[in-house]
Amino acid sequence: MADILRDSPASDWRKPDPKNLLVMELAAGKVVIELAPRFAPEHVANIKKLAQQGYYNGLSILRSQDNYVVQWGDPNASDEAKRKTLGKAKSRLEPEFTILADSVDNFQPLPDGDVYAPEVGFVDGFPVARDTDANQMWLAHCYAMVGVGRDNEPDSGNGAELYVVTGHSPRHLDKNVVLVGRVLVGMPLLSSLPRGSGELGFYTEGEGKPALEKLMIASDLPQSEQPQLEQFDTQSANFQNIIKARRFRRESWFLDSVGKVELCNVPLPVR
Amino acid sequence: MADILRDSPASDWRKPDPKNLLVMELAAGKVVIELAPRFAPEHVANIKKLAQQGYYNGLSILRSQDNYVVQWGDPNASDEAKRKTLGKAKSRLEPEFTILADSVDNFQPLPDGDVYAPEVGFVDGFPVARDTDANQMWLAHCYAMVGVGRDNEPDSGNGAELYVVTGHSPRHLDKNVVLVGRVLVGMPLLSSLPRGSGELGFYTEGEGKPALEKLMIASDLPQSEQPQLEQFDTQSANFQNIIKARRFRRESWFLDSVGKVELCNVPLPVR
Repeated sequence: MADILRDSPASDWRKPDPKNLLVMELAAGKVVIELAPRFAPEHVANIKKLAQQGYYNGLSILRSQDNYVVQWGDPNASDEAKRKTLGKAKSRLEPEFTILADSVDNFQPLPDGDVYAPEVGFVDGFPVARDTDANQMWLAHCYAMVGVGRDNEPDSGNGAELYVVTGHSPRHLDKNVVLVGRVLVGMPLLSSLPRGSGELGFYTEGEGKPALEKLMIASDLPQSEQPQLEQFDTQSANFQNIIKARRFRRESWFLDSVGKVELCNVPLPVR
Repeated sequence: MADILRDSPASDWRKPDPKNLLVMELAAGKVVIELAPRFAPEHVANIKKLAQQGYYNGLSILRSQDNYVVQWGDPNASDEAKRKTLGKAKSRLEPEFTILADSVDNFQPLPDGDVYAPEVGFVDGFPVARDTDANQMWLAHCYAMVGVGRDNEPDSGNGAELYVVTGHSPRHLDKNVVLVGRVLVGMPLLSSLPRGSGELGFYTEGEGKPALEKLMIASDLPQSEQPQLEQFDTQSANFQNIIKARRFRRESWFLDSVGKVELCNVPLPVR
């Protein structure tokens, strides 16, 4: 795989649109998230509105649950007097759990099956699942995927609280929560946060909550602060070679070449 | 699931044998590992020899690779003059990647399939995979599983370097590395360690390496220092109810009840 990346032509790489990149600043560094408007257009639009209003700046990481998720939002969300206003953003949104499978013509399937869905593969650099009988496609809860926290009501999520998967892929959340994107850079800053000692990994009063200093859309930042990065194009012929290299391991260390790969074990390289 | 645990009779819980428990002391607290001698008898015996000689005391965490593993061992292992002696332990061991499937009569299968193996399920509290055609069974690389680091030669692992899975299950390592047990308590102390900035997540000179203060067999500790814990018995009828509760989610939050569960998403409760 290192050989494939080293020898890859420039055409194997795509530059994410800065309008779909969120740049999150923590004390320890920057996290870059790519949004997936094709899969959750209303939620992505709402998140962008919140970001443009500066809603996220000065919020906190609320929760770090081991082998599960890190979640951020307004620590005063439940206090009507103290909580930040959502401004022009909506407070409730119809869920966008799935899109029409037949609306997508660039699905790159994986050949080795999946426990949770009839088919899995990639679209636009994101791990996805597909059910052609139901004509549904959805983003899959792999490591680093970003979703919209919600309460029990299906329309109670609005993007003011977002979470990122930091453990073994909780695929049972698929079609139960709206996924909106993926962390491209900076996962270690989130995944190595101390775990919260409260229920579900929420930080308790005594622990303090890591500060979310700033969260902005990349295209709203000065050019010099915009992340310059590229992601390996999941449409490229060479991406099929990456999948092959992961299914059949040729590194001398591997004694058993495996012959299979699971969706969330396929690397999605960023440079 | 909370109801099942609350209402479970004492007979649903098993006390791990303190002879098969390792207690690891880090600056931040204790980690307890249950060894699986049935799956890797020679490796477990070697690790016990090393622990009894005090081999691990004063070593370091060498590596924390994001979404992969944390590994510990002798920071001077490659320096013949400085490295610790293995004493009575062996320096090379024939790999124990699989055991005979027909030697195990308490395999509890899961019904929803697996990407990597013909069958998966549980034995003695451990996640396992089975291939009856090949008459093989092996421990599976789920979160918190502990394995024996090795070089390229199949017999180059001896237990002096151990790793624990801290990310999405790297099942491609199955049958390529000898797994020897599972962390029952203290995963967050390992999974939230800062990631190493070197290749493969090794800590570089400047970063410093977290200290492994002590690693002993529980039965060699004074009674008062022995961990008092129980694990939910994967043989119990109620464990089947836990699996059911995870396959068909009844919590009001779940809009889609899922209907499936993957091996590494089945909880193995400890109290």
